[in-house]
Amino acid sequence: MPTILGQNQYGKAENRVVKITRDGDTHHIKDLNVSVALSGDMDDVHYSGSNANVLPTDTTKNTVFAFAKEHGIESAEQFGIHLARHFVSSQEPIHRARIRIEEYAWERIATSDGNSKFIGADEVKHSFARKGMETRVSQITYDGENWEVISGLKDLTVMNSTNSEFWGYVKDKYTTLKEAYDRILATDVSARWRYNWTSDEQRMPNWEKSYEQARKHMLHAFAETYSLSLQQTLYQMGSRIINSRSEIDEIRFSLPNNHHFLVDLEPFGLKNDNEVYFAADRPYGLIEATVLRDGVEPKIPVDMTNL
Amino acid sequence: MPTILGQNQYGKAENRVVKITRDGDTHHIKDLNVSVALSGDMDDVHYSGSNANVLPTDTTKNTVFAFAKEHGIESAEQFGIHLARHFVSSQEPIHRARIRIEEYAWERIATSDGNSKFIGADEVKHSFARKGMETRVSQITYDGENWEVISGLKDLTVMNSTNSEFWGYVKDKYTTLKEAYDRILATDVSARWRYNWTSDEQRMPNWEKSYEQARKHMLHAFAETYSLSLQQTLYQMGSRIINSRSEIDEIRFSLPNNHHFLVDLEPFGLKNDNEVYFAADRPYGLIEATVLRDGVEPKIPVDMTNL
Amino acid sequence: MPTILGQNQYGKAENRVVKITRDGDTHHIKDLNVSVALSGDMDDVHYSGSNANVLPTDTTKNTVFAFAKEHGIESAEQFGIHLARHFVSSQEPIHRARIRIEEYAWERIATSDGNSKFIGADEVKHSFARKGMETRVSQITYDGENWEVISGLKDLTVMNSTNSEFWGYVKDKYTTLKEAYDRILATDVSARWRYNWTSDEQRMPNWEKSYEQARKHMLHAFAETYSLSLQQTLYQMGSRIINSRSEIDEIRFSLPNNHHFLVDLEPFGLKNDNEVYFAADRPYGLIEATVLRDGVEPKIPVDMTNL
Amino acid sequence: MPTILGQNQYGKAENRVVKITRDGDTHHIKDLNVSVALSGDMDDVHYSGSNANVLPTDTTKNTVFAFAKEHGIESAEQFGIHLARHFVSSQEPIHRARIRIEEYAWERIATSDGNSKFIGADEVKHSFARKGMETRVSQITYDGENWEVISGLKDLTVMNSTNSEFWGYVKDKYTTLKEAYDRILATDVSARWRYNWTSDEQRMPNWEKSYEQARKHMLHAFAETYSLSLQQTLYQMGSRIINSRSEIDEIRFSLPNNHHFLVDLEPFGLKNDNEVYFAADRPYGLIEATVLRDGVEPKIPVDMTNL
Repeated sequence: MPTILGQNQYGKAENRVVKITRDGDTHHIKDLNVSVALSGDMDDVHYSGSNANVLPTDTTKNTVFAFAKEHGIESAEQFGIHLARHFVSSQEPIHRARIRIEEYAWERIATSDGNSKFIGADEVKHSFARKGMETRVSQITYDGENWEVISGLKDLTVMNSTNSEFWGYVKDKYTTLKEAYDRILATDVSARWRYNWTSDEQRMPNWEKSYEQARKHMLHAFAETYSLSLQQTLYQMGSRIINSRSEIDEIRFSLPNNHHFLVDLEPFGLKNDNEVYFAADRPYGLIEATVLRDGVEPKIPVDMTNL
Repeated sequence: MPTILGQNQYGKAENRVVKITRDGDTHHIKDLNVSVALSGDMDDVHYSGSNANVLPTDTTKNTVFAFAKEHGIESAEQFGIHLARHFVSSQEPIHRARIRIEEYAWERIATSDGNSKFIGADEVKHSFARKGMETRVSQITYDGENWEVISGLKDLTVMNSTNSEFWGYVKDKYTTLKEAYDRILATDVSARWRYNWTSDEQRMPNWEKSYEQARKHMLHAFAETYSLSLQQTLYQMGSRIINSRSEIDEIRFSLPNNHHFLVDLEPFGLKNDNEVYFAADRPYGLIEATVLRDGVEPKIPVDMTNL
Repeated sequence: MPTILGQNQYGKAENRVVKITRDGDTHHIKDLNVSVALSGDMDDVHYSGSNANVLPTDTTKNTVFAFAKEHGIESAEQFGIHLARHFVSSQEPIHRARIRIEEYAWERIATSDGNSKFIGADEVKHSFARKGMETRVSQITYDGENWEVISGLKDLTVMNSTNSEFWGYVKDKYTTLKEAYDRILATDVSARWRYNWTSDEQRMPNWEKSYEQARKHMLHAFAETYSLSLQQTLYQMGSRIINSRSEIDEIRFSLPNNHHFLVDLEPFGLKNDNEVYFAADRPYGLIEATVLRDGVEPKIPVDMTNL
Repeated sequence: MPTILGQNQYGKAENRVVKITRDGDTHHIKDLNVSVALSGDMDDVHYSGSNANVLPTDTTKNTVFAFAKEHGIESAEQFGIHLARHFVSSQEPIHRARIRIEEYAWERIATSDGNSKFIGADEVKHSFARKGMETRVSQITYDGENWEVISGLKDLTVMNSTNSEFWGYVKDKYTTLKEAYDRILATDVSARWRYNWTSDEQRMPNWEKSYEQARKHMLHAFAETYSLSLQQTLYQMGSRIINSRSEIDEIRFSLPNNHHFLVDLEPFGLKNDNEVYFAADRPYGLIEATVLRDGVEPKIPVDMTNL
């Protein structure tokens, strides 16, 4: 046979599970989009169509919903760990499970009159609004022995309206760009960080707290860096997380440079003193890099932040 | 000639203008997507291609950016009023201008450690993150004499995890639905409300405050209504706004019923006590209606909430 | 009560129904996305939540699927007519039904070696590929007496690489555009045409043939018009249809001007002789107009082509 | 310093270049979306913000447009090879260039009356319509010595309305799926194949012909395989290409199983004899695998088909 099967995986993608937990009349929501990918002894199904080793993708879907009841959803990462362990340990032919989860955030609708942000006495305990455009993501992989947990977020749109410059770059025959000493720096952050928890022998991180803290450090670094290039800002965001969170060893970013071009108003007799910008769609600069704790091996794939 | 020209309009759509205003070292952002549509004596350009009456769409784009400097952007509505008045009053062949604006909200990134929402001493005054998924919208129309201002929002996703029932409906031969006495009620609100300000002789509403208050009343009505049907909730949302805001006479909603189906866990020996739901994509219920101040004429088009 | 209910409608949107018809071992596909909107005596459900007059949206969904079996799908229009008639005639409180349908086209995969387009002896009679990006649309409305059928298409992307000019337009203080004597003209056609079939007394048009012919005339007019403005091209497209198809009385277009800007290559010592273009996203010109058979009343809503 | 920089790259993404070539009055279109990613000695810009080694992303954009004039666009692959070679050979600090290209297909609008597909005497030589929903993709990588060319396509939607079964699979406690002996098999093909051309010493493949033939073999294998599982169909599609095209050594697929569920019409007294289906959105099965020429090393990343 002149052709052979290489890496393969299968499962049910984008299972949209919503879990309501009741604490008296106060309700809590977990809203996830869960994708299962299984690998193992799958030569036969590809070569001959024999499904004897194949757990149907429909069953993987059922398992997601059943586990939301059986184990609850403490965090996306913990939920993924339950699922991955189940598939690998209960099915002989399955040697690896990879669970990808997107989580959508909700916040309570407050009805106290004073301040729409305040959650007070008049709070309605079962009414919610979707919060923010960003999506929290995680990927849990298990091969029966070792764990890999990569978490992060995407579509977190941020902007600094000053404290950004760009000059001193290479000029070749195709260069027409003018140097900039005060520009808008805007991007949609896509970040993935890898935890150094890899074994059931280690103490597990607090996934919820770790996520919140990593997100906070990243935002603070974005806001506080006086930027000479988006690459510099990226590195500051990454090193701030690694220096602050000992459970995280590696982080990869994909940062589009959302160009805001200063509009030329001179033809209309007006001076544009860094006030009026055209927000362009395409093309955009795209800056991607990994920041690592010194001495660790990188493992986050180059394109993972584009998924 | 057996064919004639009917209603027509033209202009530049989706001009993405960002305006930074500096108050000392504190910056303020207005981030708009502005679409211009002009109508008037345009028979010739359609019949023969003569552009003698045509102000180029490129010029309408330039005008948007120039006006951001000349007039600033106090509110989307006020900005649209400046633009509409300009096109109708400065160009003889143009008899009507319609300006549509989407506004994207930003919030400051706070770097004080205690509370990421608090804007305190350590606030970075020029760093922002996009806030929420919802988009504020407005449409300003002017014919040289009368104004019509319709404002609203879209993509505001909300959910009540209880206090919703659905029963007592018509059953015909195609009915299989079971009655529900405790269900999730979730929707993506699209709303458009019409102001009764129509003339330069009247005092203009405070557009920013009116928007915030209308949005607040709508959310409160959603949270506080014990719902026997999404139609009932819709009507409560609309009448709350009209009863609270004298400057608004009419409101139209388009409310998809974002179905959350209780998953049948019995095959797995589990009881689903209103805990685990499947969030479905399509098909979805779609409830649309107008709520009016008694005695006023409806003017918001049926499909406007779907734009 | 100071507020009242205005226009309202409800139903199940986006029912994705696929119908396979077997002609021996040759299969035929109809692939539709059907949305139902019903109106009538619906005050109670809005005012008090009583569902006594409400046929559940779930039932309207079931009806769509059942009718695909009971009536087959001869054409989208005919299918919509069956559905609309059923809802209005079988349910006392329902006074109007509006059915919107999107249809996706498929073409057979041919396996004869010579020509991948040719459907020959080696054709596989049950294998299909989605054809084109465009979507065929139709809207059928019935009030128990009169019919309104509006058909059309959207997302048909076309381009003329020459035979387009733009000059002789109004110049004001915000005009900077240079006149163009040979430009690319590109657009994504969205069109809706209204049939003059309104009553069961009249002979019904051949919906499939009428659609194909209208589409063909529109494309030919686009290709054959030497254009001095996109408005002129639009009018030619519309009048060609009305002059060729007696069953159609009115057509409305929404034509974005998909700008292709000639790139300035002079800084690199190169001459751009109408060869290299930048295809821009936003902003874009937007040209919208209705073309009517002389003497008829326009009925297609202004924004219908944007839905 | 406790953190270090890992893999990084930067450039201008999504440059939309359209090239018109004139052959007398017959025009030809190439419509590409080109993304440039450069890597090399980029430590300084990340650590300190020094741009001394940074060719601006704006320059990479200019180069794309200038090269469309200087080299023309014979094929996406050849165009990417010109660009990659230029960046690596002209810029000392740049050690690797990766060019990703999407290509959009157009077909001529024919105006001969007989047959809208036939390009005959009445053909309008400069009028085009976008063809198909699928997008042709390629990625060209060069490190100054070796080339890697990966081509493919995405969003090619296909369906077999019969000749597909699924049974004989593993049943565990979460399995409820019923076995199927005649089902619809539908998917959106995303495929990437790797060429064994790696050096300027080798003869280059005919990129256009190779693409067309690979696509054809893939479609034929899809149509002709009697399928016991989507994995089996996938493997047939891949091995058909490798066995037919000696220039291709490896191919990876991502095939969503676009579920078409047979609607239960029994409650309405109707029998559904494999006629009426509900086309579901989410969740969907997802089958991914690589097929290799025996003996070669796999190099296409696992997630590349999801980009």
